[in-house]
Amino acid sequence: MDQPSGIITLLTDFGLRDPFVGLVKAVLVSRFRAVTVIDLTHEIAPQDVSEGAFWLSRSFAYLPAGTVHLCVVDPGVGTERLPVVVRAGGHLFVGPDNGLLSEAIERAGDFEARQIDERRFTLPRLSRTFHGRDLFAPVAAALASSEVAFDDVGPPVESLVRDVWRRPARDGGVVTGTVRTVDRYGNLLTDIDASNLPDDPSRCHVELGATRLRMVGTYGEAAAGEAIALVNSFDVVEIAVCSGSAAGALRAGRGAPVRLIL
Amino acid sequence: MDQPSGIITLLTDFGLRDPFVGLVKAVLVSRFRAVTVIDLTHEIAPQDVSEGAFWLSRSFAYLPAGTVHLCVVDPGVGTERLPVVVRAGGHLFVGPDNGLLSEAIERAGDFEARQIDERRFTLPRLSRTFHGRDLFAPVAAALASSEVAFDDVGPPVESLVRDVWRRPARDGGVVTGTVRTVDRYGNLLTDIDASNLPDDPSRCHVELGATRLRMVGTYGEAAAGEAIALVNSFDVVEIAVCSGSAAGALRAGRGAPVRLIL
Amino acid sequence: MDQPSGIITLLTDFGLRDPFVGLVKAVLVSRFRAVTVIDLTHEIAPQDVSEGAFWLSRSFAYLPAGTVHLCVVDPGVGTERLPVVVRAGGHLFVGPDNGLLSEAIERAGDFEARQIDERRFTLPRLSRTFHGRDLFAPVAAALASSEVAFDDVGPPVESLVRDVWRRPARDGGVVTGTVRTVDRYGNLLTDIDASNLPDDPSRCHVELGATRLRMVGTYGEAAAGEAIALVNSFDVVEIAVCSGSAAGALRAGRGAPVRLIL
Repeated sequence: MDQPSGIITLLTDFGLRDPFVGLVKAVLVSRFRAVTVIDLTHEIAPQDVSEGAFWLSRSFAYLPAGTVHLCVVDPGVGTERLPVVVRAGGHLFVGPDNGLLSEAIERAGDFEARQIDERRFTLPRLSRTFHGRDLFAPVAAALASSEVAFDDVGPPVESLVRDVWRRPARDGGVVTGTVRTVDRYGNLLTDIDASNLPDDPSRCHVELGATRLRMVGTYGEAAAGEAIALVNSFDVVEIAVCSGSAAGALRAGRGAPVRLIL
Repeated sequence: MDQPSGIITLLTDFGLRDPFVGLVKAVLVSRFRAVTVIDLTHEIAPQDVSEGAFWLSRSFAYLPAGTVHLCVVDPGVGTERLPVVVRAGGHLFVGPDNGLLSEAIERAGDFEARQIDERRFTLPRLSRTFHGRDLFAPVAAALASSEVAFDDVGPPVESLVRDVWRRPARDGGVVTGTVRTVDRYGNLLTDIDASNLPDDPSRCHVELGATRLRMVGTYGEAAAGEAIALVNSFDVVEIAVCSGSAAGALRAGRGAPVRLIL
Repeated sequence: MDQPSGIITLLTDFGLRDPFVGLVKAVLVSRFRAVTVIDLTHEIAPQDVSEGAFWLSRSFAYLPAGTVHLCVVDPGVGTERLPVVVRAGGHLFVGPDNGLLSEAIERAGDFEARQIDERRFTLPRLSRTFHGRDLFAPVAAALASSEVAFDDVGPPVESLVRDVWRRPARDGGVVTGTVRTVDRYGNLLTDIDASNLPDDPSRCHVELGATRLRMVGTYGEAAAGEAIALVNSFDVVEIAVCSGSAAGALRAGRGAPVRLIL
């Protein structure tokens, strides 16, 4: 891997109401005083591994190679799911092996994975419910500070849990995807990648349930209140309502199927 | 301008739910590894340029000279509005020329402005909807790191868009202002500056619609549940309800007109 | 005390909607350019000193000795309550003397306290309503940067305000405690410490009003929708509903009495 960048990003479903994120950072800075921490988001819907996987896959590449991504959306904490570190595309991903890391790894290319040796890395006491603080943070700090090399984290893992949600699929002239997240503005972000679109996107349209949406280039091409689809700044098809909330107007949210008609 | 302080503040309407802020910081730290980032707020009401302008004007002076303020409340993203850098009062302000920066600049005194040369500063791809990440962050990082001087950002801009909302106005013994933001506690913060008040504020009163409010020195002088007005810690007239929410009790919010009767 | 760690943690009820936290950080970084700031939480319920005291007491020990904890939940701001610095367990605590610091100090062991000399530390102007920015932040920065020693903060304070809420009490085989906070997931966190429990916790049960809850080891031992009690990652008894919200299902919140039956 590339030299560690000294940066650790955080992506969790911990929220910002309780000191959970603060305590993860307390452990990071206690172990690696010079760390730079960047919060990607802590507002992944509780236990929504799919939403976390989506945002991680569309975010990590904005960080320099050598960055450690500490990712915790972990409904199986305290059970048999493996804690892992994955090296892919010059980045390191630390978290539970439950699909959360899978989409980013796929976009990064080839990967290697290690199971975290819990006995070596956990805080003096490992709680059963807060591995972000007690296990994953110490490992992330050790990797980011070069105190531990990737190969020394633990034994190799040959295969990782793949995402268990439906993947976008193309069948002739139809690409079927899913609303993976709803942003602050009520926009519906799908996992249909821009690479599916022809050079002139206006020749396509999008269907959400019985609603047909035309493809535009940017929000400004729509009338106020009109629901449209466009390729957004994360290179996926997004459904928006100009000066409004698509989630509210179309009564749709995470998990809704979306069809791109080519 | 003063030597860069190495500090970049952020003021946006991005919220903290999605990784938008995290990706702005990812770009900043990728371009300027030693940057210190301070979040002023990301919870400006979506597209409320007026609320953003108010908070920026009342916040920037707490930072040292040489600080870069990266401000994005940008309903016109992707349209003709200019991306600018403004130098005023020893600070640099980066954002859209839509009035967002105007109130801070006015408080800072004389200013110079430059249009950002998009071709030189944008990420390899400039999305149409996320200039905070793709354009403003690279410029802010370049300025804060002294990689680029203010004069080299782009061509001079002679005049800037002024705020388009109503300004406080004095007519004889009456100052008319506006509720510019409602804080976490439900307090109504107006843009009536403390400089309008006489030495003994208790000789004035404030009117919000048909409600008359007496001026007090601090919250403790009001009875529980009583609505009062006072000069707050940002040197503006604020309407509060002791141990309660003025916004709730008085059914008022952003944009409401307020009269100070001298 | 130990050498300052250069770290300042923040625990407040300021929320993240307004720039209040950002301005505290602006003052910190203006006074101590190399400071590392860690947000524990800013979402303490407004003016809930008890909730703040609980979280501080269960969080501070994850930071290295020499850390300054800047704590502001301050309903009495502008009145006679004393601003203090307390040294305990190798840590420094800065805030109002209203019980907020008391629970952490008790866990830390012996303490010394000083009243902050306001004239020496405040910003050029001390507002009546925002001492976090105008008084406590300058003191915290001076201590964390070693610019001022603990002994030079102001005159000694012999006794501190103790928490004024009910403390957990043991009477024979019954420990009575209180729900001190509700976390993001709707779990009810009590102040009944794990040290009250026998080696085999399953021999106990917990009562919340008329509801009897069995003690389990981890969430996974409960059926979906079942309300249970367990020792959580903060070493206190917590009431949870598997895959649900205990606060919602049991209609309980902060302040509710809880009984542990041994």
